Amino acid sequence: MRDGDTVDISLSELSLRSGLNSALVKYYFGNKAGLLNALLDRDWQAIVTSVDALVAKDDMDPEAKLRRHISKVTDTFYAVPYLNRLTMRMVRDSDETGARRIADCYLSPIYRAYENLIGDGVRAGVFRDIDPQLFYFTVTGAVDRFFATRLVMKYCFDTDTLTEELRDRYREHTVDIIMAGILAR
Amino acid sequence: MRDGDTVDISLSELSLRSGLNSALVKYYFGNKAGLLNALLDRDWQAIVTSVDALVAKDDMDPEAKLRRHISKVTDTFYAVPYLNRLTMRMVRDSDETGARRIADCYLSPIYRAYENLIGDGVRAGVFRDIDPQLFYFTVTGAVDRFFATRLVMKYCFDTDTLTEELRDRYREHTVDIIMAGILAR
Repeated sequence: MRDGDTVDISLSELSLRSGLNSALVKYYFGNKAGLLNALLDRDWQAIVTSVDALVAKDDMDPEAKLRRHISKVTDTFYAVPYLNRLTMRMVRDSDETGARRIADCYLSPIYRAYENLIGDGVRAGVFRDIDPQLFYFTVTGAVDRFFATRLVMKYCFDTDTLTEELRDRYREHTVDIIMAGILAR
Repeated sequence: MRDGDTVDISLSELSLRSGLNSALVKYYFGNKAGLLNALLDRDWQAIVTSVDALVAKDDMDPEAKLRRHISKVTDTFYAVPYLNRLTMRMVRDSDETGARRIADCYLSPIYRAYENLIGDGVRAGVFRDIDPQLFYFTVTGAVDRFFATRLVMKYCFDTDTLTEELRDRYREHTVDIIMAGILAR
């Protein structure tokens, strides 16, 4: 998914790339949806654990926490650039129970973390009075769009590799512009 | 595509929704790719014309131009929320020539507009020294993500309609946070 900049993958392509028999998928995960759900669980559990730990930190002020968080979002999307699209795909393709499980386990905890991260800073007078729900879309969108557009890079900017140097530049840019956007003057 | 929050549509579904025979698609557009290319052309041409006109305005300062532009991006994504995903899909599914045409006609002109919009403001000392290429991803990402996630809204925030009221709130939020992020203090 990372190489192809897409979440449309087939079991046969997966089998080709991994050199493993696609029957193994059936054995371990039941079917393709089971495999993708396991991937989602693996990626999201790491994120939720890490965000919760950041929110719980007593020895860090709201500005430092948010700065650290935005940095980590950039690194996460560099590591798993397919995550948002895969999540949306799974929510859409799941039944009501499956969709609600993804929302309850992964999306809502992140949103609640934003309520805390932003709320603490607003109450401390460090942040302007920003809506955490809208801010959540601002941050994840700004980062997701960047990594979801390797093809734009290829045809507009003549580079189709997302290098670590570019990741570092974008991390700095994103932290810089969003912190300037939220900090009380 | 707007209703389903997806660019995966079939000609038979299209025919069902529109009440028109799918043979008409073949008659007018050749095939599904032809139809989608025509849609892309229609949507993008309006955007490129409007952005070019904004950049060319002599009687508006860089701050007012950028403010107006971010507002319009929000309105555009509200009107055609599928546009970015459809564009990426078409770039990916086209051959080299087709992909290059989309990049040259639609993506590069917008990027050049950003170079002008941001460059003018930086030179005038109104904006901080921000990279226009990275800024382009920040703006379009922040807006795209919001509208691409009606499903998140449904399961996390118990509303699956993107109302005009929410669009207006998000427009104000986005203009506010991004302008605060870029303006020189």
